[in-house]
Amino acid sequence: MIKSIAILISNLNKTNIISQAKYTTSVLPQFSSEKYAVKRKNFGILKSADVEYFKSVLSEDRVLTDESDVLPFNIDWIKNCRGQSKIVLKPKTTDEVSQILSYCNKNRLAVCPQGGNTGLVGGSVPVFDEIVINLVHMNKIISLDDISGALVCEAGCILENLDNYVRDHNLIMPLDLGAKGSCHIGGNISTNAGGLRLLRYGNLHGSVLGIEAVKADGTVVDCLRTLKKDNTGYHLKHLFIGSEGTLGVVTKVAIHCPALPKAVSLGFFGVENFENLLKLYKSAKSSLGEILSAFEMADNKSISLTVENCKLSNPIGDYPFYVLIETHGSDETHDSEKLNRFLSQEMESGLILDGTVTSEPAKIKNIWHIRESIAGAGLINGYVFKYDVSLPLRNYYDLVLTLRTRVGDRARVYGYGHVGDGNIHINVSASKYSKELYAILEPFIYEEVAKVGGSISAEHGVGFRKPQFIHYSKDKTALQLMRDLKQSMDPNGILNPYKVLPDVPDIEKD
Amino acid sequence: MIKSIAILISNLNKTNIISQAKYTTSVLPQFSSEKYAVKRKNFGILKSADVEYFKSVLSEDRVLTDESDVLPFNIDWIKNCRGQSKIVLKPKTTDEVSQILSYCNKNRLAVCPQGGNTGLVGGSVPVFDEIVINLVHMNKIISLDDISGALVCEAGCILENLDNYVRDHNLIMPLDLGAKGSCHIGGNISTNAGGLRLLRYGNLHGSVLGIEAVKADGTVVDCLRTLKKDNTGYHLKHLFIGSEGTLGVVTKVAIHCPALPKAVSLGFFGVENFENLLKLYKSAKSSLGEILSAFEMADNKSISLTVENCKLSNPIGDYPFYVLIETHGSDETHDSEKLNRFLSQEMESGLILDGTVTSEPAKIKNIWHIRESIAGAGLINGYVFKYDVSLPLRNYYDLVLTLRTRVGDRARVYGYGHVGDGNIHINVSASKYSKELYAILEPFIYEEVAKVGGSISAEHGVGFRKPQFIHYSKDKTALQLMRDLKQSMDPNGILNPYKVLPDVPDIEKD
Repeated sequence: MIKSIAILISNLNKTNIISQAKYTTSVLPQFSSEKYAVKRKNFGILKSADVEYFKSVLSEDRVLTDESDVLPFNIDWIKNCRGQSKIVLKPKTTDEVSQILSYCNKNRLAVCPQGGNTGLVGGSVPVFDEIVINLVHMNKIISLDDISGALVCEAGCILENLDNYVRDHNLIMPLDLGAKGSCHIGGNISTNAGGLRLLRYGNLHGSVLGIEAVKADGTVVDCLRTLKKDNTGYHLKHLFIGSEGTLGVVTKVAIHCPALPKAVSLGFFGVENFENLLKLYKSAKSSLGEILSAFEMADNKSISLTVENCKLSNPIGDYPFYVLIETHGSDETHDSEKLNRFLSQEMESGLILDGTVTSEPAKIKNIWHIRESIAGAGLINGYVFKYDVSLPLRNYYDLVLTLRTRVGDRARVYGYGHVGDGNIHINVSASKYSKELYAILEPFIYEEVAKVGGSISAEHGVGFRKPQFIHYSKDKTALQLMRDLKQSMDPNGILNPYKVLPDVPDIEKD
Repeated sequence: MIKSIAILISNLNKTNIISQAKYTTSVLPQFSSEKYAVKRKNFGILKSADVEYFKSVLSEDRVLTDESDVLPFNIDWIKNCRGQSKIVLKPKTTDEVSQILSYCNKNRLAVCPQGGNTGLVGGSVPVFDEIVINLVHMNKIISLDDISGALVCEAGCILENLDNYVRDHNLIMPLDLGAKGSCHIGGNISTNAGGLRLLRYGNLHGSVLGIEAVKADGTVVDCLRTLKKDNTGYHLKHLFIGSEGTLGVVTKVAIHCPALPKAVSLGFFGVENFENLLKLYKSAKSSLGEILSAFEMADNKSISLTVENCKLSNPIGDYPFYVLIETHGSDETHDSEKLNRFLSQEMESGLILDGTVTSEPAKIKNIWHIRESIAGAGLINGYVFKYDVSLPLRNYYDLVLTLRTRVGDRARVYGYGHVGDGNIHINVSASKYSKELYAILEPFIYEEVAKVGGSISAEHGVGFRKPQFIHYSKDKTALQLMRDLKQSMDPNGILNPYKVLPDVPDIEKD
């Protein structure tokens, strides 16, 4: 009855993730509620009359209730979380989403909105029996203005498909991430995804022009404007960017696409130590200026493990640190002059030990593929504890070293990330999940991040996994304001419960 | 007792606005409440005990109650709006702001938060007797990280002072506007100011890293982070960006400052017609790409009136349209090569009729001075009806022509603005304010904007002048969500009343 999870997950996660997923074990993860000892809240329980209602709103084939059909929607792709939903709904229109939510709100049925299910903090899968609303069928491109760069589309469009589409019109999507082959733009927005080129094209709060979202009570909030400037009242769209589906379900999106760069170059360099890596970053900002589109780092363990597990080849030798620098510009001659000048200057200074620079699309793709494969590579060995933190640059790599000492030979600790944004991903790769290792890592890692004023979640979000740690990065008054907003916009709390907002500690309750 | 308004306003508006203000007439504008027939809401009335309380919180010299002292804080700089406040409070610390608001909230005393009072929609002055909280004394720079570019400062810092400060550290402020010599960064954020270089450095929702704000009940909401990426819960800072002081008083700001460009060039060109101007914009985006930092336009009337009224000299001949193009780059040779190639190409194509290109700072400043003087130049003739709208580029200039026909010889209509953002400022300059002209212009202009899906306020905000027109750009469900947020965050409605939110129409009331 239950198909192999490897197959199920690989069906969910297309293209670049598929190669990782097929290596994964077929053992089903433990239920999240048991693993993390969570109590079910007092929501309604799905009845057959509810199922009949949903079938009357959607066509029958878009209401999944068979256990094996529902299973993959219950499990996140790092196989950490597993929910117990009995039903998956696949609306095709905003109106259908509105009808579903209105009904659920009246009947206090909890829901879990879901995009490509590539989230890393358990935000995209249910915890108990929440109704999954998966937006896979809301995948239409509505319009593209190739002068202004405004793209309007439905929330279920896959990021890579959108990027391919706008490239045909000499534009690119303003964000890019490893999961692009499966993640949905609505999910990107709901989690305020950052990704690889934030350094150059800014964050989604800057790029998103408009949003249509459905509130818990089914009200469709229409802020779907394509204007770059619109100061008519509160900037409501930002409520839905990064609130992880707890304030509304994003159904349509208008986003600004920058011009497709005429010239793209990439450098992949070996560096002696982190101090030199930081110096190289300062130098790149100054020498490459406005054409610098990415400055990524990975330590030796990140690259060696990825190359080994994913059967890739490292185009340069073995170095303590690696740096990937990408430039996007409008003049190939100018850009390569800048990049070559930078390269020769920093080879001479010793900041770069060795490296390769290329403008060939195939080679660029290969090097990016190594970088993008790091996220999934550790899963092949079993289980990965994933941390995604922002830190002041002077403290950027310290935590990896601290954790290595703390963890000892229980697991492999490696770090890689977006230096330009102060964002490092720290992975702790072990043969399997263990409570002992978990207790060694958490909350220690969050305490360390808080000590230097960092963020315990730079871009992955809070989801199911981090609400109890949110106070390390969020002030009490801010948490209270979050609760006030949730209360105002979703008084029954049906939207993605157990996520983002921490339970109120007993001592703070009335 | 009442000093000349020209002197009072010139005291308020320093440097680049002062030259305009001194030409203004000394007649006091009519009270806003009478001019626009507004009814006072049921707030408390200031008593002497209240004044004593404020004096106990602030030092006595930071509580103004003398009529002549209070007057300039009651009048906006375009002399359109005039409030009737009896008291101005000048807190020095967040704690003082918190104490003031907590007291006002308990006693249902309405307040009007005020920065540099350079707003153009009456948002920064009281309508009735609201207590003015002016942040002029909260002008400390707290920190600057010159590697990450994160500046932290108090809300009352003047934009130009901040820009001068960060320039000493090889950074620039991410926004620039004509009022920079008097506007406060807190006011910029509260109105989501756009300005001259949004095209390159993006909007404030992208640039602002963190905010500290005080809610109506005195709660200090601390979201003052300096991290570029922080996905820990709701992105609350955006509630305060562009809500014009109706949801909270911004007290501190963290903002990302981009690198000071090593090379700045400017071109000022004459163009035959608007069609050619649009073609030139497309060509500039393609040829100048990542170094394009501003693409501004002004029609013949804008420039001729400004040059005449402000006694400036136009560096090129008389043309139907003018374009100002600025580049910010990291390599002077590359940049001037790009700009000269663009210039010779477009001189040859005929899109540019004549022009000048310069990299000399003094000349750059002079040309920018002409552009920045347009906003105030019309005031010298008496009164200016100012409209600030976003329009699709294909419709960008049509409205100016339509209005000219409609207005006839009653006034001069001219348009200038930020083509790259689809934002045009339409000014209607007359010898004095007249109800007849007002009725000819409004709501006609908003109806025209709504017809093509534009925004009735691109960057100036809604303030006091536009709530009754907000529905032209804001959907009913969005307006309801705005009301819900206001109700949740400021249930007594004491923060900047009569602004932003329209009154609920009687038919919609329960």
